[in-house]
Amino acid sequence: MTSRIPPRSGTAFKLQKGQLLTVIDPEGEQVSDLVAFNAIDTAEYISSGRSIDYASRLFLTAGDILYSNRSNPMLAIVADEVGRHDFTLTPCSRDTFRIIYGDTEPHHGCQGNLERALAPHGIGPDEIPIAFNVFMHVSVDGDTGEIAVLPPKSKPGQKTTFRAEMDLVIGMTACSAGQSNNFRYKPIDYRIDAAP
Amino acid sequence: MTSRIPPRSGTAFKLQKGQLLTVIDPEGEQVSDLVAFNAIDTAEYISSGRSIDYASRLFLTAGDILYSNRSNPMLAIVADEVGRHDFTLTPCSRDTFRIIYGDTEPHHGCQGNLERALAPHGIGPDEIPIAFNVFMHVSVDGDTGEIAVLPPKSKPGQKTTFRAEMDLVIGMTACSAGQSNNFRYKPIDYRIDAAP
Repeated sequence: MTSRIPPRSGTAFKLQKGQLLTVIDPEGEQVSDLVAFNAIDTAEYISSGRSIDYASRLFLTAGDILYSNRSNPMLAIVADEVGRHDFTLTPCSRDTFRIIYGDTEPHHGCQGNLERALAPHGIGPDEIPIAFNVFMHVSVDGDTGEIAVLPPKSKPGQKTTFRAEMDLVIGMTACSAGQSNNFRYKPIDYRIDAAP
Repeated sequence: MTSRIPPRSGTAFKLQKGQLLTVIDPEGEQVSDLVAFNAIDTAEYISSGRSIDYASRLFLTAGDILYSNRSNPMLAIVADEVGRHDFTLTPCSRDTFRIIYGDTEPHHGCQGNLERALAPHGIGPDEIPIAFNVFMHVSVDGDTGEIAVLPPKSKPGQKTTFRAEMDLVIGMTACSAGQSNNFRYKPIDYRIDAAP
């Protein structure tokens, strides 16, 4: 069964060890900020810094592992039709819209959506880390370090599949930031399958 | 007065709003992992994801600001003789040495040194974020995302100065990882000056 995350919203759910989470971009060019916590001890969380260090690569794809801050595997990327995601930026927030977009009445963003979705799991605002930003296309200039947020490479229906390497709480959004999704705020779909 | 962090060790101290922290590489080619917390509420911490997003640049230098997870300015880089630092990797740890270096009796690394130094300030192991890795030289291939840890560009005596934008607890190390410092484990010096 496929579930839908409506535009500019978020959700959270348990994912058991071995289960497969498939993130689908139903209309194309949309981003989903994905965070993960150890379901037994939510002080253990997905860590971009550990994962990038162990992969020796900023851009992770099929075959790569998303590690926790305690260096334990949390999610393995087992299939990836898009091949480009970001793992350097925090979820967009009220402050993102204020600072980057100059909005005077800023949207609460993916940060606000994750806060709402994760609160019932006992996870507070300060515990939301740098997300694995599924389908987010951030270009990097290796000389200057300049980054630019470009439209995602995902075409309608394309998907990426993760396998849980421990029991997890997952937070996910349909991204609220215009730069991330070419200023068309679309939904995100996902599916959970039993271990094969 | 200049203080010295001996090779493969760490320290922590309070830095008052307006004070200047100068990090000095006395012998050249050494790295200092620097983390910062709001001294009043240590759940607020330095955030690479927010800082990189607001700068639109991976490599931060003089004129840039290191933001917190709550999007408040924590440190401003006010002078920088080296100009190349890393803000994507977590402090090296027992697991780093096991996974990347294949050590069978791994050193506790900067993570262990920061844990020991920050414990008296009530900051636990899981709260240590991605560090601002002063003088760390990580090359990035913009096409593939491949990263490589290269010898720092810092020459003996070169320094970088930060101004505290709020009252802070600072954790700092003389890095324990061979890749970071060209396999010569050297000290790091630092100096605290009153607001000019």
